[in-house]
Amino acid sequence: MPNAFVLTLISSQNQPIHLTNNNGKHAHGLLFQLLAAINPDLATAIHAAQRKPFTLALLPQPKHSQNLLLRLTTLDDDLFAPLLQRIISENLVGLRLGDQHFYLTQVLATPEGHPLAAASSWQQLAQSATVGHCWLRCHSPTVFATAKAEGRSRHTPLPEPLLIAKSLLANWQYHSPLRYTPELATSLREAFELELELVEFNHLRFGRSHIGHDFIGGFIGDIHLHCHAKSAVVQQAFATLMHYSFFAGLGAKTTFGLGLTTPLA
Amino acid sequence: MPNAFVLTLISSQNQPIHLTNNNGKHAHGLLFQLLAAINPDLATAIHAAQRKPFTLALLPQPKHSQNLLLRLTTLDDDLFAPLLQRIISENLVGLRLGDQHFYLTQVLATPEGHPLAAASSWQQLAQSATVGHCWLRCHSPTVFATAKAEGRSRHTPLPEPLLIAKSLLANWQYHSPLRYTPELATSLREAFELELELVEFNHLRFGRSHIGHDFIGGFIGDIHLHCHAKSAVVQQAFATLMHYSFFAGLGAKTTFGLGLTTPLA
Repeated sequence: MPNAFVLTLISSQNQPIHLTNNNGKHAHGLLFQLLAAINPDLATAIHAAQRKPFTLALLPQPKHSQNLLLRLTTLDDDLFAPLLQRIISENLVGLRLGDQHFYLTQVLATPEGHPLAAASSWQQLAQSATVGHCWLRCHSPTVFATAKAEGRSRHTPLPEPLLIAKSLLANWQYHSPLRYTPELATSLREAFELELELVEFNHLRFGRSHIGHDFIGGFIGDIHLHCHAKSAVVQQAFATLMHYSFFAGLGAKTTFGLGLTTPLA
Repeated sequence: MPNAFVLTLISSQNQPIHLTNNNGKHAHGLLFQLLAAINPDLATAIHAAQRKPFTLALLPQPKHSQNLLLRLTTLDDDLFAPLLQRIISENLVGLRLGDQHFYLTQVLATPEGHPLAAASSWQQLAQSATVGHCWLRCHSPTVFATAKAEGRSRHTPLPEPLLIAKSLLANWQYHSPLRYTPELATSLREAFELELELVEFNHLRFGRSHIGHDFIGGFIGDIHLHCHAKSAVVQQAFATLMHYSFFAGLGAKTTFGLGLTTPLA
């Protein structure tokens, strides 16, 4: 069952938090420390995995806040409970992000606690209501790594409908126990190429996300996708993938805070 | 020689101008009247042409202005002089846009007169300075009509580098006496697919353009394209096409005010 939850961390020094370009990297490091504490083999396996079974983002906070909000999603059914347990037990000595120490004060796991928290079964996602269109909000810079011929790679910081659908479909195929057959997945990709259209966007802007010394540019904003398909199967897959974006994120580097995405009702 | 010029029209009733959704359509109609007055066969031929040898846009003006600014570009070497001559002679009885009458007061044909006016020889465009990247400003909604299989057509209101380059290249091949050989054009298209990247955008927003009762959505804003190609031929073509956008416009419906584009120095 995909889970999304928000951890409220408070600075152990009771001091305002210095958010730096390294925070995302440090949060990423903390998560792998926790995974290693659960099981070193698990951490190694996840680190080597082509697609990580989690996403991670530091949520922006008002200046001089002593709180840090860490949003975490898990896509692997066996990851949520042990990870949360480990976070709580590590918390006795404090959680370290870079050279700052924190204590966990809250785990928000439902939409009532935080709009970016929720849980949904794979079955529920697979049966998401089909309405033929969807607004997606990309909260953090979102970019697609588009591999090209001759080993060159290029980045596409645009909400291209086909890149969006292919990214979510590949993620679903990797993590979901309800994955489509390879033949159906191929048909879906072909249908999305014909049937998806970006019909509007709002507040679209270019944002840079720092990962240590590097930065990656992407788009932030609201986008409105239409699926023109008459096929009920294609419409169901479209609705499923749009809802799945809440847990999977969108595009590249979702374990470093990029591609934090929510479907808007 | 591609020409871009701005006509200042003043209302014959000395009254503020009512800009309506039909103005673009009326300006389009006026142009074809003028062409027909030059030569009925020319008007018919241009109307039937796959790609029109002109672009046309009404420039936004302050409210209650009694002026109308009409920006016109010509891509056919034999069109500029007769068209301008005809506009000036028709002006004796007044130019009609819908039910409003106008007199021409100014023809601005150089950048000193208006930043959207200029002339450039095909040779100059073909030898545009190559710097490997370019900012383009899309002043009016810009959209690409992307024909899909099975007769469906979709619109892409996004500054996708490949769609930009392919649109300008196809336009250049149609209108320029210095067109590339078909083999080179194919190689260029392949190179652009590998080598072009959108590296930043600013002030990007979604805009609707009304053409009578219909509307078409597109993007407006500034976009920064990089061409990573090592080939001098590819870099030259990239620079040429970026500069050519000033005259050709970008994407669909450039004769109805869409895709008004200028490269930024």
